[in-house]
Amino acid sequence: MSENDEARAELNRLRASIDNIDAALIYMLAERFRCTKQVGTLKAEHRMPPSDPARELDQVARLQRLARDADLDPAFAEKWFNFVVAEVIHHHERAAGNGTADAERG
Amino acid sequence: MSENDEARAELNRLRASIDNIDAALIYMLAERFRCTKQVGTLKAEHRMPPSDPARELDQVARLQRLARDADLDPAFAEKWFNFVVAEVIHHHERAAGNGTADAERG
Repeated sequence: MSENDEARAELNRLRASIDNIDAALIYMLAERFRCTKQVGTLKAEHRMPPSDPARELDQVARLQRLARDADLDPAFAEKWFNFVVAEVIHHHERAAGNGTADAERG
Repeated sequence: MSENDEARAELNRLRASIDNIDAALIYMLAERFRCTKQVGTLKAEHRMPPSDPARELDQVARLQRLARDADLDPAFAEKWFNFVVAEVIHHHERAAGNGTADAERG
């Protein structure tokens, strides 16, 4: 194999790993939204406040700690959490528009 | 247990699941960035173009398909992919500023 063929083969190996990881991420995200949807329904049924700022602070601190352990930028972990939470709120608003509570931040 | 205690216990159960899922997500994201970093190094060493628009289109289409299978909003899967890719580009730019190529989009 030429050096270029080897580089191409290595690129394909890495991309196959990235594709597997992305599939795992998508399925885990789907499961996360199933949970937050249940939380939203539960809170609406029992008239609990939809958001819990103390819980969110704990979550961010924990994710930053996990990120450091995994050699991931903790600032990215926080950005990522806020991105996912924004989607949960979006689900919640959409569901509220349909007359049912759907989600909390998690 | 009162109805409220039961609701609180169920909330705690769901939150424990969300926390486990989030830990898994953080570790999978860390592994994904390890892969994209290797891709970036490989491409820089072999003077391959840093981005590959055809590959990215394939990735988005596949993630949307996976999202549908997992009952996740396919539009969210695309948004999520773009969010992660933006971080990969950010890594790349930071690394380029340090004199080494660091990442590609994946």
